[in-house]
Parts: sequence; C-alpha cells; structure tokens
Amino acid sequence: MENFEHCIPTKIIFGRGTENQVGAEVAKHAKKVLLHFGGGSVRASGLLDRVTASLKAAGIAYVELGGVKPNPRLSLVHEGVKLCKQHGVELVLAVGGGSVIDSAKAIAMGARIDHDVWDFYLGNGAPTAALPVATILTIPAAGSESSTGTVITKEEGDLKRAVNSDLIYPVFSILNPELAFTLPRFQVACGAMDIMAHLMERYFTNVTRVGFTDRLLEATMKTIIAEAPKVIANSRDYDAWAEVMWAGCIAHNNLLNTGRIGDWASHAIEHEISGIYDVAHGAGLAVVFPAWMRYTLKHDVQRFVQWAVRVWDVELDVFDPEATARKGIERMEAFYKSLGLAVTLSGLGVASDRIDEMAEKCTEGNTQPVGNFVKLGQKDVAAILKLAA
Amino acid sequence: MENFEHCIPTKIIFGRGTENQVGAEVAKHAKKVLLHFGGGSVRASGLLDRVTASLKAAGIAYVELGGVKPNPRLSLVHEGVKLCKQHGVELVLAVGGGSVIDSAKAIAMGARIDHDVWDFYLGNGAPTAALPVATILTIPAAGSESSTGTVITKEEGDLKRAVNSDLIYPVFSILNPELAFTLPRFQVACGAMDIMAHLMERYFTNVTRVGFTDRLLEATMKTIIAEAPKVIANSRDYDAWAEVMWAGCIAHNNLLNTGRIGDWASHAIEHEISGIYDVAHGAGLAVVFPAWMRYTLKHDVQRFVQWAVRVWDVELDVFDPEATARKGIERMEAFYKSLGLAVTLSGLGVASDRIDEMAEKCTEGNTQPVGNFVKLGQKDVAAILKLAA
Repeated sequence: MENFEHCIPTKIIFGRGTENQVGAEVAKHAKKVLLHFGGGSVRASGLLDRVTASLKAAGIAYVELGGVKPNPRLSLVHEGVKLCKQHGVELVLAVGGGSVIDSAKAIAMGARIDHDVWDFYLGNGAPTAALPVATILTIPAAGSESSTGTVITKEEGDLKRAVNSDLIYPVFSILNPELAFTLPRFQVACGAMDIMAHLMERYFTNVTRVGFTDRLLEATMKTIIAEAPKVIANSRDYDAWAEVMWAGCIAHNNLLNTGRIGDWASHAIEHEISGIYDVAHGAGLAVVFPAWMRYTLKHDVQRFVQWAVRVWDVELDVFDPEATARKGIERMEAFYKSLGLAVTLSGLGVASDRIDEMAEKCTEGNTQPVGNFVKLGQKDVAAILKLAA
Repeated sequence: MENFEHCIPTKIIFGRGTENQVGAEVAKHAKKVLLHFGGGSVRASGLLDRVTASLKAAGIAYVELGGVKPNPRLSLVHEGVKLCKQHGVELVLAVGGGSVIDSAKAIAMGARIDHDVWDFYLGNGAPTAALPVATILTIPAAGSESSTGTVITKEEGDLKRAVNSDLIYPVFSILNPELAFTLPRFQVACGAMDIMAHLMERYFTNVTRVGFTDRLLEATMKTIIAEAPKVIANSRDYDAWAEVMWAGCIAHNNLLNTGRIGDWASHAIEHEISGIYDVAHGAGLAVVFPAWMRYTLKHDVQRFVQWAVRVWDVELDVFDPEATARKGIERMEAFYKSLGLAVTLSGLGVASDRIDEMAEKCTEGNTQPVGNFVKLGQKDVAAILKLAA
C-alpha cells in the first residue's frame, strides 16, 4: 500500500425532501449565489421552484444561469464567470448532474482569477482560490458532487480536458434519490456505466497488497450490478435509486483510491470520442472499457481473474485463468447491453475514420502516454480504438 | 434506506514515517498542545522523542500528560482539564490507542466548560465547544481516530459511559502502520475483535434495502479476517498492518452506518463487564457477541444467513437457513479462538456471580433497554450473559 492523505470535506445531505434544506445550508456560506443548471427538466419538474423558494426563505439572493449541456462548454463557463464578478456572487450552486456541477466548478475557479480559467485545463498553473461550490444532484453518475474533478470541453478544437483540485470539493451536496425518478432510461444506463468506470479505473492498479480497497471497490461494483437494473425496470424504486446514488458518490470521491494508483487511460481515450462526437460520456466508456481490458489483460491476468470471480461470479478455471478473466469481460459486456448500451464504436454510431486523430490527440502526439496500469502510447490507443470498432 | 447526513472532517495522514509531519500539521491549528499518552511504550520505542522533535521544529510548545490506562479513567481526565486551563493549551494531541484518544477527547470537552465533563457522559447536557483533538495512532482497534465517540470509566461505581459529538472528530489523525509492529499479540487480537465488533454492530439492523453498506461492511469484515492472522504470524508485515489499520479506521467512522441504524447492545453489555473486571474491551466483545447472536438469531434469520454466507463463506443450506446462520457464528468463534481470544466469560476469567448486577446496571434497572436490532431489557441481558458464561 502507498502512503496517502485523505479528507473529504463535502457534507452529504441524503434522502427524501432534502432539497428543501438548501437555503438554510447555503446561508452558512454565502448571501448571494449563482444558480446554475441545465435544460428545462429542472424547471418542468418543479425542482427549481422548490430551490428558489428555499433560497428566498433563507434570505439568499441569486442570479440564474441555465443552459448547461452534456460535455459542458467553456463558453458558458465564461458567461458564468462574468456574472459572478458582475454581481459579487459568493457561492456557485449547481442543480443538475455532473455536467452542471463540472461547469459550476469551472466558474468557481474562474471567478477568482483575472486570466482565462481554461489555462488550468491546459495544465498552465493550478488554482489557488475558488468560490465555494454546492450541489443538488439529479443524476447519479459523474461523482462530481463529492470529487475534486471538473471536465470541460472547449468548442474550438473539440478539446475536452480535466482539472483536479481540493479547492473545488463542494462544501455540501444534497442527494435526494427521488430527483432521479424522471431520468430518461438511456441517461440512467450511461450514469451506471460512468459509476462502473470510476470503480474499474481505480481497481486496475499495479500497487500490491491493497486487499481492503479491492474489496470495497468490488462491493461497490456489485451494488451497481444489482441495483441499476432495478431502477431501469422501475424508475420509482426509491431504495434502488438510493443505493445507486450513494454508490455513485462513494465511487468517485477518493476513499476507494486510498493507498493505490488508478489507471485512467479509458477515461482519457473516451474524452477524445465524446470531445469529437458529443456522445454521452458513459456511452463512450461502455465501448472503450472492454477493448482496453482485452488489450491490457496479459499485463496482470491475476487481477483480472480476481475481478471476474468476485465481481461477476465467474467460476475460477484454475487450469486456464485467462479464460476466467475473459469470461468476466464478456459478462461485463452482457451487463452493459442489458442496460441498453452499445459496446462497439459502430454500435455507438461512431465511424472508425478518425481513430488515428483521436489517438494522436489523446497522447499529445505520442509525447504523453496515458494510463498507469499499462502506459499507453499513440499506437496502443489506436489499437484499442480499433479493437472497439 | 434512511435519510442521513454525512461528513468526516478528520484529515487522515497515512503511511510510513508520517509521525514526523505532526509538528507542521499541528501548527495549522495551535501553538500550544497537551501531549497525552499512555505508559512507557511510546517513550521506549522512541516515538515520543520523534513527536516532540517534530513539535519543537515547528515551534509548538507542549505540556506532557502520560499515564492513560486501558478503560481510561475520569480522574486522569480531570488532571488533563486542569493542565489545559492552567497552561492555555489550544489542542490536545493523543499519542496512543483508543484509550488515549478517548481520554484526550474528554479533556478537550472539559477544557471548555466550568462544570464536570462527566455530566456529558451521564447524559446531562451536550458539549457546545471543545478544544481541537489530533491523534497519532499506535493501536488499530477503537476507531476513535476518526470517530465522534469517547468512552470513559469513572472509578467510583465502576461506571463506563460514552459520549458522541461531532465536536470531537479529530482535526487530523496520523496512521503509520509501523507503529503497530511492537504491539503485544494479545492486544493485536483484542484490536481485531474491536474492529469486527464495530462492523457487526452496524451490520445487524432492521433497516431494509441497505445492500450497498451491507456489502461495504462485509468487505471490511473479510479484510480483518484475512489480514489480522497475518500480523499475528508476522508482527512486521507492513502491508497487512496497513490493511488492518485503515480498515479499523473506516469501520468506526460513520461511513459504514450511512442510511442504517446499528444495534450497539453488545457494546453496552461489554461495557458492564470491562467496567467491573477491567478486562480489555476487545476481549469482552469476543465473549458477548456469540451469545448475543444466538439470543437474537431468530429475530432475522435471513440477515444472519447473508452474513454467514458472504463473510464466513458458509455454504447456504436452503432447506435449513438457521443451520447456515449457526455455522457462521461457529466460524466466527473459531476465528476469535485462532487469534487467542476466549469466547466465554469463564475463559476470560470472569465469574458468573455478578451477572444480575451487570444486567441491572446495563439497562438502568430495566428502565433503558439496550440495542436497536432487538430491544433488550434486564432479563434479556442477563440471559445473554448466562449464555456467555
């Protein structure tokens, strides 16, 4: 096990009706907020009315900025930064899923600097201050509600890049599983996939003797495998949603990464796909992971065997561990398909003619290998994308 | 799943050599500390010298108070409170195991009030302020390093009572598994038992649809079952210690209790045993749990079956679930014995002649039932202690 530091300062307020506490909770941090959200669904569902009523009751002023889209755009972030500076906003309140929260985090960093916040996403400097961010989560998926991460897409050049900073841990996040009842089925599937991906990125590590976090990760994967089909079968199954929502949050705060070093190549590869084709992140991950696994399997067959046996209940073939591991990958693909996800690029409606371009961008012209479990150069990434075709 | 709020503010600094960061870390919170510890082992091992060197290097003044014993005493707490007030101490730094940390938490609460801190342990009022507490953990067991709890024994009347308050979450805790290398074998076993007990208290709940935390609890139990025998076989197995130490911390911060209501009757019953006989808390728990389980088994056989199958790898007898559950209890007993622990009161050297007295004290004369999974009155507690005889 590696040395580590661990602290998750985000206060989680979980359960039925908890969005009505938002005003009182915000009042502990700020008097004026940017209320940031996506499309019309939070308005149509009445959620936005409940939020603004709670803010008003607590004497909190707010400026609204809607319009966040999946794969959130830098241009809207710039708009949010401007509004914060103009109105003296003290906290950015995200009401939505990972895209809204990631956009809010970018705005929170941008509001405290004079240069373009995109600089941080390019790796030029790191934030030293940010407005506090708070969230009301509507989509269990990205884990951004208690993570240090934000992913933003710059429209020119289809560039999708990430920043991680302890400064953007939300100060609080409200998780009410009821808010997920109205999600479209495809979005539910993409969310479940995103959660699985966060777990697998952490699971495949070269750090040895990390049995405790191995088991915690397996427990969380088994939870998603058991509960995600239930919410797809019955979108109003509160308890199944509660399990998925809480597991999705734990999956991406850093508890399950303590003492280990995750891989993250699949995320980097997927960012190139969704950066160009604007597919849902989770849908892209469902395509990348099986291919990544088949490409890296021989690097550590035992780890894949443990995963296949414990997570997917594959019977161990002691005489052919690799076959055991491959069965795990097959069961994972079958699970994704059962959720309604494609497991190939063609199934996703993505042609194969820009694979080399994606591989080149992903590895910055083969100068920046991706992944820690196996370091992948441009040729490796292209080979994985071809396997996924 | 129940609604819940969750936030663990304690910063964990985990790994080899981390005790040398203590001065720099304290400096973020205080300039003068009470350095609180137990017997001679932290001095003999050189740990105390490294700690004071780190404090001095960071310009931190300190007042020493050693002498904490297992089942920490109120009289020493009073001494600590006096020292804090006298010297204007700003933070209580515990160097030791759960007893030292619990004592430090009591002192931290007492230093901010004019009345006796024991009032809180009697349930008369709750703390509204406390000095910050920080810890350097030497014994993986109590989980006090990132919990809200403190348990203190008042010598007159052999009263052992607990307080829980968010105010006494340590501000940081340093966990270096190397510090556990020199623990006596019996103390290691008691610590492993204490960790198992914290997990089982949370596991046995009447709250339904809590599959995620069920699985996290099972994962943590399996970790202790796998790793504790390794540290007993080889006291310098760093990685096994790291697993036990990190699992012990997670076992008792409230993550694994989110959305569920734990039982805690076994802890209450054990407090009566160790309050009178001064046995190690973990040793007492190894005796109480099997008896508590046999007494409550029929309340929810399915929950015991799930535990037996998943945690103890008992093969499910679908035609006789109760037999499956009982095999789980037997394997648990065999595990405790393999660690060198007794599973009966007589094995612990405790006579049966004060059972009624303990049952009466535990339930405050049958006016305060203990436990949530099954509410136990005085007669129930006496019956369990007789089963444990």
